[in-house]
Amino acid sequence: MSLTKIAVMGFGVVGSGTVELFYKNKDLIEKRCGHEMDIKYILDLRDFPDSPFADKLTKNFDDILNDDEVKVVCELMGGKTFAYDYTKRLLEKGKSVVTSNKELVAAYGDELIATAKANGCNYFFEASVGGGIPIIRPLHQCLAGNKVEKIAGILNGTTNFILTKMIYDQLSFDDALKMAQELGYAERDPSADVDGFDPCRKLCILGSLAFGKHIYPEYIHCSGIRTISLDDVEYAANAGYNIKLIGLIEDTGDGLVATVCPRLVPVSNPLASVNDVNNAILVTCDALGDALFIGKGAGKFPTASAVVGDIVDAVKHQNADICSLTWAPSKDNSFIKHYKQDKVRVYVRIQANNADDLKNYITSLFGFVDFIPRKYRSADELAFITPDIVETEIDKSLALLAEKATVKKKIRLL
Amino acid sequence: MSLTKIAVMGFGVVGSGTVELFYKNKDLIEKRCGHEMDIKYILDLRDFPDSPFADKLTKNFDDILNDDEVKVVCELMGGKTFAYDYTKRLLEKGKSVVTSNKELVAAYGDELIATAKANGCNYFFEASVGGGIPIIRPLHQCLAGNKVEKIAGILNGTTNFILTKMIYDQLSFDDALKMAQELGYAERDPSADVDGFDPCRKLCILGSLAFGKHIYPEYIHCSGIRTISLDDVEYAANAGYNIKLIGLIEDTGDGLVATVCPRLVPVSNPLASVNDVNNAILVTCDALGDALFIGKGAGKFPTASAVVGDIVDAVKHQNADICSLTWAPSKDNSFIKHYKQDKVRVYVRIQANNADDLKNYITSLFGFVDFIPRKYRSADELAFITPDIVETEIDKSLALLAEKATVKKKIRLL
Repeated sequence: MSLTKIAVMGFGVVGSGTVELFYKNKDLIEKRCGHEMDIKYILDLRDFPDSPFADKLTKNFDDILNDDEVKVVCELMGGKTFAYDYTKRLLEKGKSVVTSNKELVAAYGDELIATAKANGCNYFFEASVGGGIPIIRPLHQCLAGNKVEKIAGILNGTTNFILTKMIYDQLSFDDALKMAQELGYAERDPSADVDGFDPCRKLCILGSLAFGKHIYPEYIHCSGIRTISLDDVEYAANAGYNIKLIGLIEDTGDGLVATVCPRLVPVSNPLASVNDVNNAILVTCDALGDALFIGKGAGKFPTASAVVGDIVDAVKHQNADICSLTWAPSKDNSFIKHYKQDKVRVYVRIQANNADDLKNYITSLFGFVDFIPRKYRSADELAFITPDIVETEIDKSLALLAEKATVKKKIRLL
Repeated sequence: MSLTKIAVMGFGVVGSGTVELFYKNKDLIEKRCGHEMDIKYILDLRDFPDSPFADKLTKNFDDILNDDEVKVVCELMGGKTFAYDYTKRLLEKGKSVVTSNKELVAAYGDELIATAKANGCNYFFEASVGGGIPIIRPLHQCLAGNKVEKIAGILNGTTNFILTKMIYDQLSFDDALKMAQELGYAERDPSADVDGFDPCRKLCILGSLAFGKHIYPEYIHCSGIRTISLDDVEYAANAGYNIKLIGLIEDTGDGLVATVCPRLVPVSNPLASVNDVNNAILVTCDALGDALFIGKGAGKFPTASAVVGDIVDAVKHQNADICSLTWAPSKDNSFIKHYKQDKVRVYVRIQANNADDLKNYITSLFGFVDFIPRKYRSADELAFITPDIVETEIDKSLALLAEKATVKKKIRLL
């Protein structure tokens, strides 16, 4: 067996998890890979004097870049600036790069994959979506014979935890967020999670892979869960739905529609019962039909699991571009259909004096709607679900309704 | 783009589905693969004069074996005799083979993988387990950094359909089987499904991959669902369980325990709500924790989906052994722990005059047991669930109980 040297850039949660997991299962990993391997460098600007891996630590990227022994590098730093520059230079030197950096892949995936191909090495990013859940490889390898029709996913563990606490423990959004922060699931600035930017990046990656064109974050309508109230949770439950933050990309026949937003998911849909910090990705294809992947979408070792899986593949194929991952750059978003041009059912909650008096008017605006019951519903409150209508038409009707009532909430259905 | 020629052996359900799917999505598949490809031969002993692919049909295996243009062959014939001989000879000629033949892989997987490696080609079998669900590649590639602890799966769609009909529509086993046969889910001789041989073969493949040693069908305890009655279904439901046919292989620390048998699955376990012909595979690993894969486990196009995915991989890497699938031959079953040496909880249903009078005796035999309530339970019937006990001890106690009552049923819990 030949000996391959690896470097790890970034010694935070995922980086240290990767190093720990690598040494824990080293014998098994080497046997499966058919190569001996070792971690030669760990790049981080911080000092870790008490780390058992202190002898591997360096603050100098050039140590890794210029060491011909190093064939595979894990970029676990996050962010775009340094990560982009380092990744690009490593690939140009023919070193394969493995990453968990969804922000970078969502912004530069097409370019970095092309750079890897041009230099006979690989750029792998299984860890960038769904943490440890195998999804990137299944999507582009196992489903290669399929035309993908739709991907719907719970792509963010933090928001799924918050919504689970709201649904099952009747915690308010603020209290559930606070609990998520105390448990270390949410950052002090929770915006990337609760405003949907993180799942948006993951949807970019899945969509680009499935549909073959780079889908940039700005092509995706993105809204988060800050405004979801316990009133909405209860009405949804009474109508047979759970509220989930869903990343959805769908080939409508006249363009791709891509959104990240809270949705009412029917309890009969398996996504509705994926709870806590779990992620789930439902892929619908022409031949296979539905395939569902569920697992831990984040966390030190689940993410490290995906990184190490990619390391094994990269070490095994270090002299060949085996990466069948590919998508074309997209010059514009003309292949994207505006989500408001798409048909959708929406849940609406309004406030008005004697709200029930508006029922006939609401029916005249939307057609046959489902009014949702609620125990002890106050007379000035009403919630309903519309039929399937192009969303711009729904908005027009809501504007008319707003002349007679306050529209408190509108949430799409899945 | 180079042009690669493919052959398909066996033009039954999966074979014709593979050919149809290949031509339906040919442009997309070639783009993803980076190679042009075409099907040159279809081998079948029957005549298909009206087939649009009649010009490709041959009855002579040698046409395929001796045609140097053919680089990838799909073995979709099933069975062991011809399939083994043909596969072996094709691999020895350096042609990659893709198969859905679980029986062959379960019996000769180690040998055929080794033959492929020795001849610089690949032997792929994603379609052999879980139909179109991506599971083989995720298990050996994506989870390569993990020590697998346990695999539990619903691996047979026919029996899952029958049990679903028993649970939700109160059909008897016989009626549900008849319905499955009428719908084309079950064969006229349903033994391979309902007696568990089919899921046993699939568990062999998953276990061999996960634990690195060939697990032969005879190493696995296998029992089917013929004896499950609606009484059992109702008692299970009253205790919070669904009955499912579960393939289970687990590393107990002092050996692997492998069984295919009906089990009471707690409704909180996601496997409990996988219904109809769907399959599901729950993999538990040290780093990732639980990952769950759900989808259509059988059927023409779902299985073809997996075959075509393997074709793409085989065409892409036709001159390299990239198959990281591997497991060692096993000379004996000394690494298998007898399942009766393992601790397990079991459900027991007995018949006796004034059965409730035996409650104290049952408790003295098994310790704290859960007696299960049932509406209109007759006085001569009693069902209970034991604590976690080594199964040989349970059997000893059941032998004592059998002196005072008729033990009608014993079903393990998951």
